[in-house]
Amino acid sequence: MSKRTVFVVSDRTGITAEILSHSLLTQFPNVIFHTRALPFVDTPEKVVDAVREINEAADNDKARPLIFATFVSPQLFDGVRRARGFFVDLFGTFLKPLEMELQSASSHEIGHSHGVVDRDRYTSRISAVHYAMDCDDGVSIDDYSKADLIILGVSRTGKTPVCLYLAIHFGLFCANYPLTEEDFNDGALPPILQPFRGRLFGLTINSERLCQIRTERRPDSRYSSRQQCEYELAQGQATFRRHAISFADTTQMSIEEIGTTILQKMKIRRELLG
Amino acid sequence: MSKRTVFVVSDRTGITAEILSHSLLTQFPNVIFHTRALPFVDTPEKVVDAVREINEAADNDKARPLIFATFVSPQLFDGVRRARGFFVDLFGTFLKPLEMELQSASSHEIGHSHGVVDRDRYTSRISAVHYAMDCDDGVSIDDYSKADLIILGVSRTGKTPVCLYLAIHFGLFCANYPLTEEDFNDGALPPILQPFRGRLFGLTINSERLCQIRTERRPDSRYSSRQQCEYELAQGQATFRRHAISFADTTQMSIEEIGTTILQKMKIRRELLG
Repeated sequence: MSKRTVFVVSDRTGITAEILSHSLLTQFPNVIFHTRALPFVDTPEKVVDAVREINEAADNDKARPLIFATFVSPQLFDGVRRARGFFVDLFGTFLKPLEMELQSASSHEIGHSHGVVDRDRYTSRISAVHYAMDCDDGVSIDDYSKADLIILGVSRTGKTPVCLYLAIHFGLFCANYPLTEEDFNDGALPPILQPFRGRLFGLTINSERLCQIRTERRPDSRYSSRQQCEYELAQGQATFRRHAISFADTTQMSIEEIGTTILQKMKIRRELLG
Repeated sequence: MSKRTVFVVSDRTGITAEILSHSLLTQFPNVIFHTRALPFVDTPEKVVDAVREINEAADNDKARPLIFATFVSPQLFDGVRRARGFFVDLFGTFLKPLEMELQSASSHEIGHSHGVVDRDRYTSRISAVHYAMDCDDGVSIDDYSKADLIILGVSRTGKTPVCLYLAIHFGLFCANYPLTEEDFNDGALPPILQPFRGRLFGLTINSERLCQIRTERRPDSRYSSRQQCEYELAQGQATFRRHAISFADTTQMSIEEIGTTILQKMKIRRELLG
């Protein structure tokens, strides 16, 4: 396996560059990458430090470092370009063609992405996170009327992480409702959910996987037994089918995939907030 | 203001393309963009649907749509390319040069990014999210020994969202400790935190902004009064200074900026997990 050092360098957070580098480099499973983030390289002094650090890696490694860069300031980026490395320049590559297409100059201003630009949008993200926290696992179920979405599933199907993901990145108000044995007695939809049928989405998971996850949490318990997991999952899925609730199997899915699937299936128009 | 329709099209979640489009397009504040996400375009039939939707927008708009694409499958992308639009092709642009540089073919496999590849890493993200939930606002403070990081601050300085952000994206175990009046009596560090001095990071905020945020939560209360906000913030900052705790002012910062700042100042080596 060959090894390469990767630098993610930006005069802002560098999150966009880091995500792109992650997406691109995972396509090369035969190379081991060591990534170093150099965010907020926003003064000439920090540029000098960054160049030194990159050149040190170039000296130590047998191959030149890969440098994923997003600089809003062309002056600062000119400085970083003097480092010895293979550059993937996101803004340089795409901004010029976009300026031509849009017949508009780009602003080259810091803080337009991953920064607080619009206070209302920022506040809505924070409110959404606190809403998800407050409405986690049915804690504050009188507040469902505010929910954009209510995610159902038995314990540990992935409801909480996906609610928080959708809150942080899209400002969606997501509640979650844990299906428990009590909900399976009469085949009816829990009364508290009945006014909100259009906002419900179900999660399920493979029983072997659920058993693993629950065992890590409470080993040798009824809760984590294979029989109990199978029973709850079967009842949960029967509930989804009986009440025509869209659902997804999260066994092979990441948090991002679950979130994207829900937004797509529920036809929720949303905008990435950060 | 001119208007443009933007499509984010992918055979996977499209999150990378969406984040890049967001970063690039916020550099054009004079154009209004309407973004439509078309994720999971992973069959020839869905390609046909996507092309139709893009071409309809091209017919309706006065300008061609912008299309941000990340396709792992070159065959599917060839199909999408027939749509009438201005393409920003992330993988096509960067993968070939990277293949040359790395002297390695890219795998063109689905699921290597924003997918569940490595179960341990996935499990660690989920565990980190549940840890952040359990340790929110000092609820389960006996568990601080597991924390990679403990974030301090008075109520509503942004502790909870940033803990969850770091948990979801980096799998970090972040606890948070709410500083309250009781902690300000004797100038000592709260005893519960004393064993973990090296893991503490403080958040503060402008008092006017805090007053606004708290007023939305509890209007006309002592909690949201200007005087109380000023008092708590001054005491909080005095605590950080007295005990040499690094801290940041979150007034102008997004969740991503706060997270990146903390990782940098605490010199936490971490890897983006999704």
